[in-house]
Amino acid sequence: MAESPQSIDLLIQPRWLIPVEPHGVVLEDHAVAVDGGRILAVLPVADAQARYAPRERVELREHALIPGLVNAHTHNPMTLMRGLADDLPLMTWLQQHIWPAEAKAIGPEFVRDGIELAVAEMLRGGTTCCNENYFFPDVQAATYRRLGFRAMVGLPFIEFPTAWAASRDEYFDKGLAVHDEFRGETLIGTSLAPHAPYTVANETFERIRVLSDQLDLPVHLHLHETAHEVEESKREHGARPFARMQSLGLVNDHLIAVHMTQLTDAEITACAEAGVSVAHCVESNLKLASGFCPAEKLRRAGVNLAIGTDGAASNNDLDMIGEMRSAALVAKAVANDASAMDAASTLRAATLGGAKALGWEARIGSIEPGKQADFAAIRLGDLEAQPLYDATSQIVYAAGRHQVSDVWIAGVRKLRDRVLSDLDVAEVLEKARRWRERIGS
Amino acid sequence: MAESPQSIDLLIQPRWLIPVEPHGVVLEDHAVAVDGGRILAVLPVADAQARYAPRERVELREHALIPGLVNAHTHNPMTLMRGLADDLPLMTWLQQHIWPAEAKAIGPEFVRDGIELAVAEMLRGGTTCCNENYFFPDVQAATYRRLGFRAMVGLPFIEFPTAWAASRDEYFDKGLAVHDEFRGETLIGTSLAPHAPYTVANETFERIRVLSDQLDLPVHLHLHETAHEVEESKREHGARPFARMQSLGLVNDHLIAVHMTQLTDAEITACAEAGVSVAHCVESNLKLASGFCPAEKLRRAGVNLAIGTDGAASNNDLDMIGEMRSAALVAKAVANDASAMDAASTLRAATLGGAKALGWEARIGSIEPGKQADFAAIRLGDLEAQPLYDATSQIVYAAGRHQVSDVWIAGVRKLRDRVLSDLDVAEVLEKARRWRERIGS
Repeated sequence: MAESPQSIDLLIQPRWLIPVEPHGVVLEDHAVAVDGGRILAVLPVADAQARYAPRERVELREHALIPGLVNAHTHNPMTLMRGLADDLPLMTWLQQHIWPAEAKAIGPEFVRDGIELAVAEMLRGGTTCCNENYFFPDVQAATYRRLGFRAMVGLPFIEFPTAWAASRDEYFDKGLAVHDEFRGETLIGTSLAPHAPYTVANETFERIRVLSDQLDLPVHLHLHETAHEVEESKREHGARPFARMQSLGLVNDHLIAVHMTQLTDAEITACAEAGVSVAHCVESNLKLASGFCPAEKLRRAGVNLAIGTDGAASNNDLDMIGEMRSAALVAKAVANDASAMDAASTLRAATLGGAKALGWEARIGSIEPGKQADFAAIRLGDLEAQPLYDATSQIVYAAGRHQVSDVWIAGVRKLRDRVLSDLDVAEVLEKARRWRERIGS
Repeated sequence: MAESPQSIDLLIQPRWLIPVEPHGVVLEDHAVAVDGGRILAVLPVADAQARYAPRERVELREHALIPGLVNAHTHNPMTLMRGLADDLPLMTWLQQHIWPAEAKAIGPEFVRDGIELAVAEMLRGGTTCCNENYFFPDVQAATYRRLGFRAMVGLPFIEFPTAWAASRDEYFDKGLAVHDEFRGETLIGTSLAPHAPYTVANETFERIRVLSDQLDLPVHLHLHETAHEVEESKREHGARPFARMQSLGLVNDHLIAVHMTQLTDAEITACAEAGVSVAHCVESNLKLASGFCPAEKLRRAGVNLAIGTDGAASNNDLDMIGEMRSAALVAKAVANDASAMDAASTLRAATLGGAKALGWEARIGSIEPGKQADFAAIRLGDLEAQPLYDATSQIVYAAGRHQVSDVWIAGVRKLRDRVLSDLDVAEVLEKARRWRERIGS
């Protein structure tokens, strides 16, 4: 006698299922079974129908299902400054536009409203997790938790007073209080986020290293963003920033090194040996003329590569599908090799690579039993994606983020046929307009 | 006594009107008046309402209206090979994948069906004109004419037999017959399209130069696409391809030089002095690891810069909005200057620059009285484009092609709120699926 089917929350049957792990595989006629927010099984549709009685069944006849995209470096409140100042060098952009605008705007409301806009944009683009880096991590964490969006929130450290904290001790005290408050949350994590080698002193880095070890927290750091940064460090510290971080004990598997446009072969080897993750933000690096990260060299050396959009003030979007495409295309030209950063490896960087950078590779980043049910479904029936020879290639090289139809986080459907489940778009837009009046005036 | 208002075909009142000429201007509270397929006037809305009685009035409350985008280099039938073979070096890609696939497929039906798919995609992305480069220009021209799409059709020349022609004389005879047949068409033009320096002999180039002079036709040529091409030419001809073209008299204001990733400063100066147009295909150059075109250097030297997608087999889309973004971003990193290829200059290259390359700058490329009424309307109210500080920046750096809502060619509305007016999408998709079966098998 056959066993009676098991009651489960959800069964999704996409046309193509791209689990990311195993690598390079595209499954057809497969389903993913979800219960309690987690993935129970990936299996042939026929088996799934015999084994499970799902309370909800979602058939996606012209879609690919991928793991939710992980944006490995963002400043989401800055979404409210999208396009405020373009076509300017980094320091002019920061000193004459972004910092003065932030001085007018920054505070809990700005952080909350910017993140709401960003979450709406990320969900509509298939992103289910981000690595946040901004002030007011308490507000960030509370906002992400309220919106049911998976986020690692950076506890900021910088050697000057800001609206968030006035002294080094206050940065540590307030940051650790946030860590403590959100420690038990399933969707929220915290990282230590010293801004950059040129804005953070050795004493602060030393305390961060100790905390990172003791609390098992990632260190989220802008590193080797520009050649100028490297030159200044040599002048001031007698060492490249990477060497300075090595001497401070920070080059280890907790480090999420963001940008890394300036790298020697020895530094690449050191990253691989130490288990450093690199958050590659190709569009920001292009737009600010920061330089070219050697993404393919890093990948071939075995460095864990993740992909981030950076803030929408220097991108100007939070579009991980577009970022994958840019990362793949630019990597080929930089490596002088058209086979560099192939589509499957790029998708892996944008999912499992990001998960690993956050220390969450056992939790998210691929469609495997036991992991959280974070997915994005992408319509590939649109004429812009036809004819279709290979689903992964089509996602990376031809699809646009508007083809994302549905998104789940921990089994909860956050986007349903392009409609956000629990965000009032009209209200989000009205707030964005009000911030535009205030910042733009 | 007030004059009675003039009866006209169409009045469009967008939220923002970006005429491209004058440069860098964004008009608000302005309208464009259209009659007989041409632009009558660009004027304040209040004046327009007093002066004109339009048969159709289109209010676009959250849109920018721009000149229709001009795709300055395409192989549109190859849209049927989108994603057929990715992540491969140029010669492997061509010799082991594209050419064998073409051998199975090429012919009038392939060209017709590929162009139908491409026109649907181009219209949905705001493109109103393309510079086509493929075999069977007779079928191309007839298809573009039937679909009411503006195109310059290249008459192909290559030193080996193809399905289109068997000998040098036949390429000339058949090509000139096509030129003759479509000479009177308002939407269709012809160019002379020798494939590349490495596939075309001096004798052919000499005949092309004479025809270009006599018939006042552009010469559409792949040039300096890769370093390999330049090295081979030095070995075989004792000169770089550009110098060889100079000695053949082809470096003049008829030349549309496509790619140009390898350029000395002297060659850039020579291009500027001779009035050469460069069709910059940044995404194709990245994807095939061909190299980086020095777009900003060309622009600053006064060279007319146009933007093209290249074929969808090496891109993998015909998305001119995305191509603008890539061109602007990559130009900054290549020039090591974040102010390079600013948004307004990039939009100019994608419209008026393309028009000028085709010799059509008096006809299209900007929203000016007397020009053809070719427009694209782009929704900027979507949350991905909010908040909005600058409409041009938002189009180039944040918008996606799916935000294109409406498109006109010569005053005819070809796309209406995302719906194609005169193409049966289901039929186009069914044909694409059939070609996939045939080519992919």
